[in-house]
Formats: sequence, structure tokens, C-alpha cells
Amino acid sequence: MVDVAVNGYGTIGKRVADAVALQDGMDLVGVAKTKPNFEARNAVERGYPLYAAVKERADEFADAGIDTAGTVGEMLERAEVVIDACPSGVGAQNASMYDDHDVKAVFQGGEDDAVAERSFNASANYGDCVGADSVRVVSCNTTGLLRVLHPLERDHGIGKVRATLVRRGGDPSQHGRGPINDILPNPITIPSHHGPDVRTVMDVDITTTGFKVPATLMHVHSLNVETEASRAEVIETLEDESRVRFVEPDDRVSSTAEIKEMMLDEGRPRGDAWENMVWRDSVSVEDGELYLFQAIHQESDVVPENVDAVRAIAGTADRDESVRATNETLGI
Amino acid sequence: MVDVAVNGYGTIGKRVADAVALQDGMDLVGVAKTKPNFEARNAVERGYPLYAAVKERADEFADAGIDTAGTVGEMLERAEVVIDACPSGVGAQNASMYDDHDVKAVFQGGEDDAVAERSFNASANYGDCVGADSVRVVSCNTTGLLRVLHPLERDHGIGKVRATLVRRGGDPSQHGRGPINDILPNPITIPSHHGPDVRTVMDVDITTTGFKVPATLMHVHSLNVETEASRAEVIETLEDESRVRFVEPDDRVSSTAEIKEMMLDEGRPRGDAWENMVWRDSVSVEDGELYLFQAIHQESDVVPENVDAVRAIAGTADRDESVRATNETLGI
Amino acid sequence: MVDVAVNGYGTIGKRVADAVALQDGMDLVGVAKTKPNFEARNAVERGYPLYAAVKERADEFADAGIDTAGTVGEMLERAEVVIDACPSGVGAQNASMYDDHDVKAVFQGGEDDAVAERSFNASANYGDCVGADSVRVVSCNTTGLLRVLHPLERDHGIGKVRATLVRRGGDPSQHGRGPINDILPNPITIPSHHGPDVRTVMDVDITTTGFKVPATLMHVHSLNVETEASRAEVIETLEDESRVRFVEPDDRVSSTAEIKEMMLDEGRPRGDAWENMVWRDSVSVEDGELYLFQAIHQESDVVPENVDAVRAIAGTADRDESVRATNETLGI
Amino acid sequence: MVDVAVNGYGTIGKRVADAVALQDGMDLVGVAKTKPNFEARNAVERGYPLYAAVKERADEFADAGIDTAGTVGEMLERAEVVIDACPSGVGAQNASMYDDHDVKAVFQGGEDDAVAERSFNASANYGDCVGADSVRVVSCNTTGLLRVLHPLERDHGIGKVRATLVRRGGDPSQHGRGPINDILPNPITIPSHHGPDVRTVMDVDITTTGFKVPATLMHVHSLNVETEASRAEVIETLEDESRVRFVEPDDRVSSTAEIKEMMLDEGRPRGDAWENMVWRDSVSVEDGELYLFQAIHQESDVVPENVDAVRAIAGTADRDESVRATNETLGI
Repeated sequence: MVDVAVNGYGTIGKRVADAVALQDGMDLVGVAKTKPNFEARNAVERGYPLYAAVKERADEFADAGIDTAGTVGEMLERAEVVIDACPSGVGAQNASMYDDHDVKAVFQGGEDDAVAERSFNASANYGDCVGADSVRVVSCNTTGLLRVLHPLERDHGIGKVRATLVRRGGDPSQHGRGPINDILPNPITIPSHHGPDVRTVMDVDITTTGFKVPATLMHVHSLNVETEASRAEVIETLEDESRVRFVEPDDRVSSTAEIKEMMLDEGRPRGDAWENMVWRDSVSVEDGELYLFQAIHQESDVVPENVDAVRAIAGTADRDESVRATNETLGI
Repeated sequence: MVDVAVNGYGTIGKRVADAVALQDGMDLVGVAKTKPNFEARNAVERGYPLYAAVKERADEFADAGIDTAGTVGEMLERAEVVIDACPSGVGAQNASMYDDHDVKAVFQGGEDDAVAERSFNASANYGDCVGADSVRVVSCNTTGLLRVLHPLERDHGIGKVRATLVRRGGDPSQHGRGPINDILPNPITIPSHHGPDVRTVMDVDITTTGFKVPATLMHVHSLNVETEASRAEVIETLEDESRVRFVEPDDRVSSTAEIKEMMLDEGRPRGDAWENMVWRDSVSVEDGELYLFQAIHQESDVVPENVDAVRAIAGTADRDESVRATNETLGI
Repeated sequence: MVDVAVNGYGTIGKRVADAVALQDGMDLVGVAKTKPNFEARNAVERGYPLYAAVKERADEFADAGIDTAGTVGEMLERAEVVIDACPSGVGAQNASMYDDHDVKAVFQGGEDDAVAERSFNASANYGDCVGADSVRVVSCNTTGLLRVLHPLERDHGIGKVRATLVRRGGDPSQHGRGPINDILPNPITIPSHHGPDVRTVMDVDITTTGFKVPATLMHVHSLNVETEASRAEVIETLEDESRVRFVEPDDRVSSTAEIKEMMLDEGRPRGDAWENMVWRDSVSVEDGELYLFQAIHQESDVVPENVDAVRAIAGTADRDESVRATNETLGI
Repeated sequence: MVDVAVNGYGTIGKRVADAVALQDGMDLVGVAKTKPNFEARNAVERGYPLYAAVKERADEFADAGIDTAGTVGEMLERAEVVIDACPSGVGAQNASMYDDHDVKAVFQGGEDDAVAERSFNASANYGDCVGADSVRVVSCNTTGLLRVLHPLERDHGIGKVRATLVRRGGDPSQHGRGPINDILPNPITIPSHHGPDVRTVMDVDITTTGFKVPATLMHVHSLNVETEASRAEVIETLEDESRVRFVEPDDRVSSTAEIKEMMLDEGRPRGDAWENMVWRDSVSVEDGELYLFQAIHQESDVVPENVDAVRAIAGTADRDESVRATNETLGI
């Protein structure tokens, strides 16, 4: 039984906590949050021990009628592994605290690669991370790229990769974020950071460009990969990947909103799409180049990766065992 | 046991079907849909007998590998009550078919008032609809207005009502609908139809104005009501209404997207908000005028009303029994 | 000849500078800006002496190849009146600097009422501001309300006013601002500050509620006014107001974007709509209550007011002379 | 003097009419429109003879108080060249009418390639179109691609081209069009039609993928071109192209909305950006592959091309003369 704490209980943290709570070999010893709100109340309703992430603001929870179990330091005392799901950059500030409490740590992709011993992706380098003191689960977009590129490289070999990422401006409830009615090349200098981020985990020649647009539901990638594989071979490889799912012609789904609607209809918690959603009709290969479109749910695609990362650094399962267990509990 | 069919399995129909399937005294004999897509597939996965709404298109289901149980006519043969959840205006075209099959019918608010014997709202006029051959559940916005106005009138009496409705442009997956980056007074002539629609159910002096904006999640109302009640009395009345829910200051929820996030966190199916969501902090009374803001989930607030409407016309329960049963099964 | 400086050369400042430059009795002695960008370059191309608003950042202009004429202090030495068009709250910080340089000042509505001797609106209280050391031009929305309410009160008398303001989330190029796909009652507590802001200039019983939506072009008001005037009388009064313009049925214009399109087609600089745009078809009077919709261009409706404010505090013209001169030069 | 008529006076037609009216060697004999609205009124105010595009609706203009000069047939009697700026597909229906009146015709890119003798782009194949009976100005996106690809091919030779087009959902005032809060791979099958459309004018190996997003201002391209040219050579080539403009680092412009703001500040009519707007900072060349971002103003980039197309088919100027004259009159 691995005692797991989740520091940061927002978009990612709450989903990861739910996933951890479902695992046989893990005990969710607590979640920490900076401020009381509906999410904090919901954590308590779900029976998660709730800790105040910032000592000085602990009183705010009491004022809001929400019981806390202590401070983040006390939570760490009870944990063997902490999953840091704080906003980008805060994880790096927390790293020494985790060291001080002698807990292994899983960081998120908003942190710099240097925050942890290794960057992590369950498809690509689970084995390299077994027993590490800390890992960093690469970002949602990087995870999405790796889930396709790693198996293609493994089965067929790939050459240059060129990807354009059309990214959402913010998550659904981040109403302070824009843009409204605008398209931003982002960053303007090419390439974007996603290519180098892929290379923290996998050796591949990749260039990425990115856009930011007024949408909140999912990112979408236009992916171009030099490969000798045929369309049928590409599809066969991807069909074998449990975290790649095809959007089928008969689904009659042509947008990110329709994917989310389909997930909600299927009864997925919060309508989450943990897998890469690849439009089958978009997969095309011509003159040694593969093209495809995939949608990536920024709020949830790293959730199963975080669970696997815990097993990897705790050393409690090998890759296949972990992925199978995670998938089964989530219903992937 | 009332045999209920749902004709039209889109945004409203699929939700109503799920709700009907939860009721002790109802049997969902089938749902009918015009075209095969992920929703049709999901209906089958949920175990609902699926019928082709348009005979000529039945083959499309077979082509998509989706089994159908027959045509809409055959579905109606098995039903005592049909809930028509077809697009606006189609219900009126279906009315004679329902007559021909001698099934009682529940229509939606997109139809004209004349489509049915009476317009219906569980708060306001359940009793008047008992035993009717057909009723029309008033639209999402009208339902939202009635749930507040009827209890206030009943408990305290009200004078003039003035409401401004800020309406979403389309539902989340209706990507063909706008506007993008625009605000439309809609309609430009004042008043909008919502006031008259309220009066199909309740006698009140009400004027409404409406806007259409680039959002998909919920409508929001700014409501002004002349009343002698105090703020405390208004709140007490509304707290007694099971289908009015207060957004609390400690929720720290300031927008429609945050309400939806809260519903998803609570595990509501599809993140549905069946109740009027009234911001407690917005409730103010001065000089005999009440003001408040409420958010209305256009996809789901009429779902419990449809269930109650079935019981009303089937004559199987009185108002309090029906509302209690519907609420309990849904988890309101 | 009044020597006028404009401190802050963004959305409002650049428009006000252009308007000042058109006036016979005014000399635009300079504009000040914090950072070099396309707007700074354009100021130079228009022949406006450009000053560095922040001394420490003056080098950035040189680095960008943009000549500056000095610092803001030097600009103020040359001015009799400064128009402060800095971001909200910065004006208050600048006030003592203006005092030190003994220049009269015109502030914007983002500042608190206390920043200046009086709040100002050309329709409502020009006369009260003649000769003042400083005035504050009330905000775009407040200006829009006053242009309708003041003449109605003057000609017919009005009772209670209730207004709902559907506000844009940011200006077109403010891509950092949201919301995306959300509706916010804003503020959640009722009333919004707009009613009290109207009362800094005019004595009227007014309550306002506000929303923020994902749009950038204009605000739109749903206005309700108790009055004994008939529809014809209301229209006659508003037709006499030079800064109220009717959107005519034959324009076939039903949204803010179409209004902007119409302004661009008419050749207005930057597509500006300096006047309140009132949909004629929306004007209705029943039972002693007037309703109407008006769109307010947040980027430009205060531009003519700023020009008039300069004449008022400089004491160079009475109200009618000033409004006539301003309108003529702009082409209103 | 070439007598030019413009059939269709909407987004493209009104801009093209203005541009034609500015040309020394052209006489704008009339514009035709289907319905009276603010644009029709504005055409009359600009002194353009206005014709009713649909005979049966001519009375509507009279009812709206707008004088018309006759029907579209009468307009064609007066013209040597007609520019068809009707909605996509209507041009093809009009083709035989133009033949019947023996007028040469310029069609837009919404029509199929077969509508005209040749597809046209001033950079790429002006000479091939001289004296043709009809040409089709390729669409805004295709025009934008050709303006970069043709000179690069001419000066340096290029290999494969891969482009991802992030497209606006509708034009600013098309409030009936979506999406709201969604991203659509569009079309889902790869490639999109833009690559083949480029090849109607220029022989190049190009694959394009497209997205539709909730924005109205401009399209943006992420362009990848195999070439042996260095970054400096690419920039030199593009700097020589009059209809390619660099967005400079010192402009501090990072989005389509900021480009439009810059155009409005520069006093461009309607804020039009007739040129491709290429971010200089985005231009990068590595391993024989060029990357760049460019924004394309869908409402106006084909305007100069239409003017040139008239000269080409009328045979009144060669390419360089025409481009120079068009650019000078517009102020490019």
C-alpha cells in the first residue's frame, strides 16, 4: 500500500485524487488546497482528508465551515509519495519541502524539466523511472504527442515530425483568461516548447508550432510524421494503444465539443477524455508522410500518467501491470 | 406502470429518457432518433429500445451497425405517453400522429402554446394538468422564471416583474450556431416572448427583454420583482423550493462555467443543473423591489418537469408525490 | 488656443488625441506613452510630439527607433490642460503631478469620483464644470446612460430607472482578458456601480445590474424608465440629442458587430461609434414605462465628452458652442 | 476606360467597388445588391449607381427609401467587365447571364475552378490570364499561400509545402455562424481543399490541413516549406513582395486583433489588411525547412487581386503596371 498525498486540488489535482482513490495498492492520505471553495467542500464530501496548503490561510476554511485535517506539512508526514498539482512554477518552490519530508514526488508538466530526476510518460519511458525519487509527468500536449509517436517509432521507425498545436485559451472555468475573438501564434518564435519537451522523454526529430484560440474544451493537433508505415499499419499500431482512441465515422463527431458530449453521454466522470482522441477519417499516409488530427483533453489526459508515475517511483509494478490496473479502475 | 416513449433523442430527449428510466412507476418502452451517431449508440448501450424516427432513414442505422427495434409508429403502439423532444416546430407536426396512435403527449416549450391542451410547470399548475390528453412543458427560461415567481406570488404576492435574459447562443456541441464575438438584443422589439410564455401558466404582470451572447453553458437572468416581502422572506420562500438552489458565497462561484464545474464535481450526470441556480449574494430588496441573478441550465432544467408532466397527464400521482419522487430519483 | 496634452496613448488616449488635434481652439502639445509599439510609431507618423510616460523606460523608445520629445514632465510644462487616459487607478496616482505642474486635468471614468473636483457629462452638467481645476469624464456606460436619461428628465420628468448592462469582456486587442464561453453576473451583488456613478452627475433614482460576456465590440443596455412621456415624445426628445443616434429598421442591423460594420462603411475613423446607438424598433412605452436597447462603444463614446471637458475647464466655450464644435469636427 | 460592374455588394463586393472607383482607367458603372440595408444606403451615399440584383425584390429598395438605377441586367448592359462577388455558388449560376450580356467576368474563390477560363493570382500567373474571357480570383487563403510560395519558388526553388490553416468561423458581422467555444478539424479528411486550389495556379507539392475556430478577424497560417534558401534570403525575397508585409518585433503585435488595431490606427479603410501579414520573428530556417506564421485578412486580401484581374482580362496593363497602379491607389 503506497500512501499518496495530492498537493494542489484544482483542475488536475482533484482528478488525480479521484483516480488514486480508485487504486487497490494506493491509499489517498490527503489533499491540500489553498482556499476554501466548492472544490474543497466536495473533497470533504468525497471523504478525502483535506489539508490547508498555506498555513496562514487555514482559518479561511474554518470560516467557510470546512473542516481541515491540518497543514500541508502534516499531510506530507503521512505520505510516501506526493503528487504536486499546484499551478506552474509552484511545484519547483515545493520541491525542497518534499525533500525535507523525505517523500518521493510526482510533478506536472508546467514545471521545468529540471524539477525532477526524470520526465515521465507511461508509453515511452516507464522503465527508466522505476525507483526514481521524483519524476515530472510531461504536459498534456506532450503526453498526447508521445502516445502516438512512441509506438510508431517502436513498431515502424519514424523520421521528422512536424506538429501544429491549436491550444485552448484556458480551462472552462478560468473566466479571467482570454483570448476573446482572437488567434495568437503562440509563441511567435518557432519552434514552440512542445518539441523539446517531447525530447526530454524520447529521442525524435520534432518541430512544433502553436496557436492559442478562444476555446476551453480541448487542444487539437495536426500531426505530420515521416514514416515508411502504411495507413493500415499506423492504424493497427494505434489500435493497440490503450490510451489512443479513435473517433469513428459513425460517431458523427466533428469537433472537440462533440467529443466532450460523447464522453458525458458515456458517463465518464466530469466528461473526461483520458485518451488521445484520433479521428480515424483523418489518418492518411502519402509519399511516406502520415497526417492525422487528434484532440487532447488538457484537464484529464495526464491523470492516468500520474497514477502510473506513482507506481513507477514507488516501484510497486512494472509498466504493463501499472497501465492495466490504471486503465481498469478508470474504465479506459 | 406507465409506458413512456421518447420521440427525439438529442439534448433534451436523452436526458429525459434517462430520468424516465429511473422512475419506479414508469417503463421506458423506447426512444426514437432520426440519425445514427454516438448518441444512438449510447442509447443502445444503456439498453433503451431504439426506433428510427424517420422510416426512410432506418437503413442508415443498420449501415452504422446499430440495431433498431422498429419505426416510431411501432414505438407509439407500445406507449401510453409519448414525450416529444424533437426540434422546435416538429412537435406540432407530430401531434396528429400521436392522436392517431391514441397516446397522450408531452411537448416541449419550443412548440407553440396551442400544440397541447395546457402548458405545464410543476410548481405553478400541476393540478390543472391532471388527466389532460397533452401538455406542453414550458421552455427552460420560462420554467426558470416560474419556479421563482410562483412561490413568491403564493407566499407574498407580487406586482410587476421585469426580467432581462442573457441567453446562450447554442448548446455546447451546436458548433454551427453563433454568434462569435457579438451581442444581440433578441428580439429587438420589446418585450421578448418569455413574458407571454410565463402567462400561459400563471397570471402575472411581466415584461422580459432578451440578449443572445457567445456562450453555450447556461442562460442567466437579471430579475426584478415588485413585492412587499423582505429579503429574509424571499430567501425563506425560495429555500423551501426544491428546484431552486442557492449558489453560496463560500462556493466562490461567480459564473456559469463555475456552476457547471461544481455540478461535474458533484457527480451530476452530464454535469446537469436541474435547479435554478440563484446567487444568494445577489438577492436584494429595496423600496419594495426584489433583485436577483439566476442561472438556468437550458439542457436540463426541464427534465424533472417532463417527468412530472407524465405523472400529471397519466394521473398517477398528485403534485407533491410526483415532485418528491422525481427529485429523489434524480438526486435533487 | 488651449495647449492640451494627452497622458496615456492607448485605446482612449489615441482617439482623444486625434479629436483634440481636429479642434480649432486647441493645440495638441504632446502625447505620452509608457512603451514603444505600433501605436507609438503611429503617433509620430501623425505628427504628435511623443513623450515617454515613464522616465526609466525612455531608452526603449530609442531602441525601437522611435524619437521622443522628452519625458512626461516636460510635456506637462507645455500644457494648460492634460487629459489623463491612463489605465484605471493610474490617474489618481498622477493627480499630484498635474497639480505640481499647475495644469488643469481631465480624468477618465475608471478613476474614483474623488479624483477630480467634479464628474462631467456634456449633456448633463457642462455648466457646473466651467472653470473647474479638474473634472472626471464618467465612464462609457455612465455616459451612455446620461445621454438618454438627462434629456428625458429635462423634457418629461422620469421616475425610477432600471438598467441591465451586458458588458464586453475586454477591448478587441486585449487578448489577455476573458471570459471565453462564460456569462458572469458582474458584480454579483446588486446594484452595480453604474447607478451610483450616474448620480455623481445627475439626481435620479436608478438601479443597475451588470453582466460580463465573451465579446469585445460594444456594451449593450436594456433600459427601463418610468415616465409619463409617450413613445412619440421619447423619440422626439432623443432625436434632438446629437449624441444619440437611432439604428433604423431599414438599416437591418441587429447586433453590435453590424453596428461596427456600418460605422466602418461610413468611413468613421477606427469604425468608432461616438453616439449612443438606440434601436428605434426597441423603443416601447406601456403603462408608464419606457423600454429600449442601446449599444455603447466603450472605446469611443467618451471621446467627444473629453473634448468638451477641455473647453469646460478652460472656460473657452459654453455647452452649446462646445458640443457643436466637437460634433462638427468629428462628423457627428 | 474599362466599364466595371460589381454584382454582389457585401463583404467583398463593397471593398472591391471602392477599389475600382479609385482606379484611373476604370469606371464603376454600378453595383448590384439583393436587399436594401445600411450597405445599400452607403453605396448610394458613395455615389455608386445601385441596381437590384433580384428583379422581384426591387420594390424593397423603394420601400426602404433607396433609389435604384435599374436591375442587374441593365447594369450589365453598361459594363465591359463584371466582378461577381456573390455568395459561394451563386457566381456559377450567374455565369450564363454574363455570357448572354457579353461581359467578361471575374469570379471569386468560393466558386469552383471550372467557373472560369483560368484561376488567377497577380503574383503567380497574371500573364496567363491576359485577354481571357473570365477568371476566378482564388480564395483569400489560397491567395495568401501563393503570395509567399510563388516568389520563393521563383527565387530559390522549393520542395514540399505543408501548411496548417487556422480559419475564422465567420466574418465579424455574420452572427449566425459558429462555432462558439469549439475547435473543428475542417475538413476532417486530410488534405483540405486549399492545397489543390493552390495548384490551379501554380505547380507545387503542397498538403494543407485546416481548423475552424471561434474568431472572426483573420485566418492564420503555420507554413512549412522545404527550401535551400537561408533565412536572410527568404526575408529578402519576401521584402521585395509588395503584398507581403512583415509584422515587426517593435510593433509588439502578437495576434490578429492587434494587427487589425494597427491597420485601423494607420487609417486603412475598414481597417483592411490587403497584404499577407508575416511575423518577422516567426521566420526560421533549419535543416532545409522554412517555417513562418502569417495572418490573412479574409475580407480584403483579394481586393487588389480583383482589380488586377480586371486589367488582366481587359488587357489594359501588364502585370507590373497593374500591380503598381493598384497598390498606389490603395496605399499599399
